[in-house]
Formats: sequence, C-alpha cells, structure tokens
Amino acid sequence: MPRYRLTLEYDGGPYRGFQAQVNGPTIQGTLEAAITAFCGESVRVRAAGRTDAGVHAAGQVAQIDLTRDWPPEVVMKALNAHLAPAPIVVLEAALAPDGFDARLSARRRSYLYRILNRSARPVTQLGQVWHVSRPLNERAMAKASEILLGKHDFTTFRDIACQARSPIRTLDEARVWRDGEEVRLTFAARSFLHRQVRSMVGAVVQVGLGRWSEGDLAAALEARDRSACAEVAPAAGLTLTRVDYEENSAK
Amino acid sequence: MPRYRLTLEYDGGPYRGFQAQVNGPTIQGTLEAAITAFCGESVRVRAAGRTDAGVHAAGQVAQIDLTRDWPPEVVMKALNAHLAPAPIVVLEAALAPDGFDARLSARRRSYLYRILNRSARPVTQLGQVWHVSRPLNERAMAKASEILLGKHDFTTFRDIACQARSPIRTLDEARVWRDGEEVRLTFAARSFLHRQVRSMVGAVVQVGLGRWSEGDLAAALEARDRSACAEVAPAAGLTLTRVDYEENSAK
Repeated sequence: MPRYRLTLEYDGGPYRGFQAQVNGPTIQGTLEAAITAFCGESVRVRAAGRTDAGVHAAGQVAQIDLTRDWPPEVVMKALNAHLAPAPIVVLEAALAPDGFDARLSARRRSYLYRILNRSARPVTQLGQVWHVSRPLNERAMAKASEILLGKHDFTTFRDIACQARSPIRTLDEARVWRDGEEVRLTFAARSFLHRQVRSMVGAVVQVGLGRWSEGDLAAALEARDRSACAEVAPAAGLTLTRVDYEENSAK
Repeated sequence: MPRYRLTLEYDGGPYRGFQAQVNGPTIQGTLEAAITAFCGESVRVRAAGRTDAGVHAAGQVAQIDLTRDWPPEVVMKALNAHLAPAPIVVLEAALAPDGFDARLSARRRSYLYRILNRSARPVTQLGQVWHVSRPLNERAMAKASEILLGKHDFTTFRDIACQARSPIRTLDEARVWRDGEEVRLTFAARSFLHRQVRSMVGAVVQVGLGRWSEGDLAAALEARDRSACAEVAPAAGLTLTRVDYEENSAK
C-alpha cells in the first residue's frame, strides 16, 4: 500500500480550515473528494499542519495511502484535474520513504505573515494580507521579536482551545522586514501551538505601533497567561510556506 | 478650478479597461461615479495610461479638475469611501502643479509582467499572472530582450488598432529575472504603443521556450510587420507600476 507525499498550495479564504468538519468546505474534504473522484478510494488525508480557517499554504505537506501503485506524476495530474477550479493544487507528488509521517516526521515548519501597511485598503492583495493603516516601525518589530526566539512557555500566545500537551516550544526563526508598503514576518519552529503565529504577530504589531515597548512584549511572554496577549492577527495574512523533513532539510 | 493628481491602484480583472465605454464597467467610469457621489460634479478623469481590459495598476496617475477647492486628503478619503468595495483605490492625492497634464507631462511609464512558470495552475496568484507551464529559460529571455532596448520602429509589437501617429518609440528598460516559480519582466519608456508590452512579452517568451532564437526576435523587430509578432501575452499578467514626471522623477 504505497504512501504518497503531496506538497500543496491553497488559498484558505473559501475554506473552514484544513481539517474536515460537519459545516462548510475544508481543504481536507476537498482533497478527499478529488481522490475518490480519481480512483474511487475513500482515504483520509493527513497533513503536517492543520491550518485554520482562512490561512493559506504555499508548501503544506500531506500524505495519502492508496491501494494501487500509481506513478506519483499520475496521482498529481489526476488530483489537479479533479481539484480544478478549487483554489487548491498539488505542486509535487512523490512516494514517501518508509516510516514517513507527514505530521510526526516534520522537523521544521515555516510561516510567512503579510501586513499591508498603508492608508488605502487592499486591492490586488485582498484576502492575502492584514491591513494595518497606521504606520508600523518594522525595525522596532524586528528587534522586539528576538525576545520570542528560543525555548519558552508560550501559554500567552496559545489559543485557549489548543490541545497540545505542553505549552513549551522552541522558536528558531523570527524575522521582520519591510518590502515597500508591506511589512512581512517569518517564523520557523519544529512545531507551533494553536494560533501561536497569529498571536505573536498581534503582539509584535503592538510594538510596531508604539503601543507596547520591548519590555511589554517580554512581560507578556513571561506572564504565561492568555489574557496578556494582544489582539490575534487575522487569518488572511498567514501562509504556511514550507515543511522540512530529515531527508529534504538541505533543500 | 483646482486640478488634482491622483495615484491609483486597481485590479483590472473585472473591468473593460480604463477608458469609459458603452458596454461594461471601466476604471474611468467607476472613478467618475465616485466623484459625482462625493461632490455632485460630473467630471472627466484623464490618466497617464489607458490600460486595456484586465490590466492592473499599482501606480497609475490620473487628474481631475474640481470647481471647489477641497484639501487633497479630503478628496482621497472621500473617493476611497465611495469606491469601496470596488478594487480601485486612490493611494495619493495632491494639487497638480501649473500646466500639469497626467498624460502629456509623463516622462516615463513603467510596467511589470508576471509569469507563473510551473506545471500547477495559479491559485493565490490567479488573475495576476500568465500561466506558462513549460520551463522558461529566463537568462535567454533577459539577453534577448536587450535587442528591444533603444529607439526602434515597433510596428511588429503594436496592435493594429493603435492610434499613435508614429510607431517609433524608445525603450529605456527591459529586464527579465526569476523569483522562485515566477518569471518577471519590467519595461520602461517615455510612452508605449497600444499592446506593445504584451506583444514584446509574447515574443520574449518564445525565446524562453526555445522556439525562437535571439536572431528570430531581432528579425521580428526588423520586419516592422504585425504578422511577425508571436502570440500576445494575456492582460492578467500586466501591471502599470509607476508613472514619472519631471517634478518627481527623483522620487
């Protein structure tokens, strides 16, 4: 029973998130319907990250087990044909190595957060950015975000519905820079808590607006208290950009 | 009677182009309706470039003459309020200097063309790119596009409906580079002929696909014959990124 590893891109806007649920369309449900349409099998898709409603992906990784041994290229083309015109595509398909688990084997997850920082509302960027009209100091944001690097109890930046056993995570990357009218943030870690990236972005934006000092951000982290968190950044600005595994970490 | 200079961003997708016409919505018509809604005046909007149906702008410049002397900031905010939720925004508004003409005073127009060069169809980039699934050699494209630089008779790259008196134009910039899955092209000139950028992109893509040599591109230019042109690149990939004037050319 071959296991396929799929690299996915999707626009999260029209979906209730990755995970299948009773109400509304999901990425998982749409993929599973495409698989059934392709080969008649009813399988469960398992992904590296269960992205929230409205969150996008440019390099999500998922696995499926099929009974028949199709060439990966055939699986990719067939799924893309059946997915159209949904805003979900399979960018790559490969046979997964022995013991591969899209979720448990992942060594690093990378996210990008885009903020449109200008007075005019988004036009061509609509649905892909958080619109913050007051000027952001991206240098202050970059400096403050270093506070979040390393191993911490991230309870402050964790959704109350988060089901992870431990609130301890190790943040390996936190970068902030300006690209014209956009302020962009990237974060990478082996794994994240539920809504951790959007919670951290919300707090770092408080620093960018001059409402919080670096000390305030440090105190919020130290508090280990969800109520110390600022407004959570909206889903539309967030993209899961890539997932690295042992065997492709040099890629 | 104050003249205002407006810098505009828009998604050309839902419009029949900039210029007002009998059938279908246009950028010009939508702007003029917003002006009337704001101050009751019925005025004509004049733009630096009359972008075609489906072509976008990130820095189009337009002018309007109003009878009342509103602060530019008020004009911008009122127009943006009346334009919403149309995918058109005023990024900047200023009082135009004496003798300013959005079209005739322009010294340089800059365009960006985006090609999504991968097998999977566009998802989050939908409507903003030309999807070319076969691999493009962007270095060959960059080298070949230098042939187009300078002063030439661009009849080959001019729509047959073009109303310009002369087919002679001077191309000041032609750059091609790859940014991940995208191949991007930029062109700048004092002015362009009708569909010149999309016609040039179509020809340069032939080089990128290995169907045309550099010599073929040079021969097409030399032919001064519309029938020597390749397939014209689709509108969705094109954005008018900026217009420079004497007084802001240092910006």
